[in-house]
Amino acid sequence: MSGAQFDIAGIGNAIVDVVARTDDHFLTRRDMRKGGMALIDAIEAIELYSAMPPGQESSGGSVANTCAVAAMLGARVAYLGKVAADQLGGVFGHDITAAGVHFPTEPLAEGAPTARCLILVTPDGQRTMNTFLGAAVAFGEDDVDTDLIAASAVTYLEGYLFDPPAAQAAFRLAARAAHAAGRQVALSLSDPFCVDRHRHAFRALVREEVDILFANEAEVTSLYEVNSFDEAIAAARHDVKLAALTRSEAGSVIVAGNEMVQAKAAPAHVVDTTGAGDAYAAGFLVAHTRGLDLAECGRIASAAAADVVGQLGARPAPGLAARIGLSGQAPR
Amino acid sequence: MSGAQFDIAGIGNAIVDVVARTDDHFLTRRDMRKGGMALIDAIEAIELYSAMPPGQESSGGSVANTCAVAAMLGARVAYLGKVAADQLGGVFGHDITAAGVHFPTEPLAEGAPTARCLILVTPDGQRTMNTFLGAAVAFGEDDVDTDLIAASAVTYLEGYLFDPPAAQAAFRLAARAAHAAGRQVALSLSDPFCVDRHRHAFRALVREEVDILFANEAEVTSLYEVNSFDEAIAAARHDVKLAALTRSEAGSVIVAGNEMVQAKAAPAHVVDTTGAGDAYAAGFLVAHTRGLDLAECGRIASAAAADVVGQLGARPAPGLAARIGLSGQAPR
Repeated sequence: MSGAQFDIAGIGNAIVDVVARTDDHFLTRRDMRKGGMALIDAIEAIELYSAMPPGQESSGGSVANTCAVAAMLGARVAYLGKVAADQLGGVFGHDITAAGVHFPTEPLAEGAPTARCLILVTPDGQRTMNTFLGAAVAFGEDDVDTDLIAASAVTYLEGYLFDPPAAQAAFRLAARAAHAAGRQVALSLSDPFCVDRHRHAFRALVREEVDILFANEAEVTSLYEVNSFDEAIAAARHDVKLAALTRSEAGSVIVAGNEMVQAKAAPAHVVDTTGAGDAYAAGFLVAHTRGLDLAECGRIASAAAADVVGQLGARPAPGLAARIGLSGQAPR
Repeated sequence: MSGAQFDIAGIGNAIVDVVARTDDHFLTRRDMRKGGMALIDAIEAIELYSAMPPGQESSGGSVANTCAVAAMLGARVAYLGKVAADQLGGVFGHDITAAGVHFPTEPLAEGAPTARCLILVTPDGQRTMNTFLGAAVAFGEDDVDTDLIAASAVTYLEGYLFDPPAAQAAFRLAARAAHAAGRQVALSLSDPFCVDRHRHAFRALVREEVDILFANEAEVTSLYEVNSFDEAIAAARHDVKLAALTRSEAGSVIVAGNEMVQAKAAPAHVVDTTGAGDAYAAGFLVAHTRGLDLAECGRIASAAAADVVGQLGARPAPGLAARIGLSGQAPR
């Protein structure tokens, strides 16, 4: 994609993860849906944090994870998302910048603190997420740097950002700016329950503005309210130019018009599945913006996902590009 | 130890660790002593953090780690240490409280932020620490709750706390309060370079106030300025009632008057040595306050250290007591 300053511009909820180990009883007592993501308010966040075991903090956020991984793979990446001007906001800004991602969004000076996701890991390795959106709610049209979007080959939008009310308008603005400059728009559906909450708006956005759709089986069947993966593939193929639809260890299906590629999942010793989808999208978008074919996009995406699944946390250890057999720099 | 409300009252630098992976070049370019701990000021902390790769945050501090592990092993534990009234202070307070430790110290309302230790992990698994003491410097005599000390079987002091100027007076106050109530005082030397910086004050404190001394080979030979471990053992035996002197994978030597016990290191698959000494002290103090003999104190100490060494980070995963064969509750 010639003339672009960035390969990828991501827009998402800028979140710090707080990870703690609990037993199943801790979840059931609080009516939490294991493996899901629930939104919580400030009071609930304080209460849950008080009750939680000791934690570990690290930068998170789905599209932010994707951006960090893509930068590790040699892509030129920018990220837009709202933190507060507080210590956790400083941690988020440090980490994404240190990963090599351009992060120009002004922090929120007053009001809510930086968003955090309280993640409870049960002995079976599953993660149950409780997100307090905090300052991320304040992301709006003013934060969309349309010049930056116009200078980015792909603008990648996070489905979770449909929860904060102002963000849907920001998405539309970003998508228009991208298309006006002849660029592409990608979207991750993020979570089947997020799709449930915003199905109508998602369907319209996908149909009208999205070129590249990322979704797992649960998300894409929820989006189209169909019962089978095949029906969902057919619906997605009709709506978008390119869709990468994932099925965990069963691999992924990539469709583009009449072309369809099945990508196997790369072998992985599963330690922690957090960030697998984010890393998949990173590998895919890096390969796509280098102009590689669909099979190679799928292979690199699967390899990046397998690497992240083999370790604790959503952001891989240094040396990812070499591990998955990708040269660090794209030919320019 | 009858009549005590707490088995252990720890006093130390309340620190949040920020861990990142770097190469050796990152250290040599900055003249860092690999494996050591250096004190840095606020400006240096900002500069180093800016240059560091993405990190992971978790509660640390040597004696705070010991207190958290001791509480996991069923001991009744209190901790005194100074954080600021900021987000990282909130993280520290949450984690130590959630570990089951009573943490009554008032946070610093204004001034320096919560202390942090920027930890650089090189590919060989070694950790190089850079500590910005921040609010921990403000810990002083006013923070020593002498009633709490008098109600604790053992007061455990962190050698690192000799760096903040006000803390030495606080140590003396705590030691006097403990002894006036017929309790014991334990000290960890923390670091050979910390011993170098404060040798005179350490020697006087050990001789005059310390009942139980924890040190590794480098620390105890530095303290007494002797060339051999055996000479150091002889000197420590003369100065304190009980000394537990560690030599990493060569195990430890415990001396009490004419009694001497050699404890083997427990077998461990070494992942990360951070917190090994802290966990050793925790196991030892828990066994000691239960009235177990020296051999058993050494065995439990070594088992706790091996458990922590086998995982990333200084605070072990839930279930430690069961893994090392210790019943969760002491007979009372």
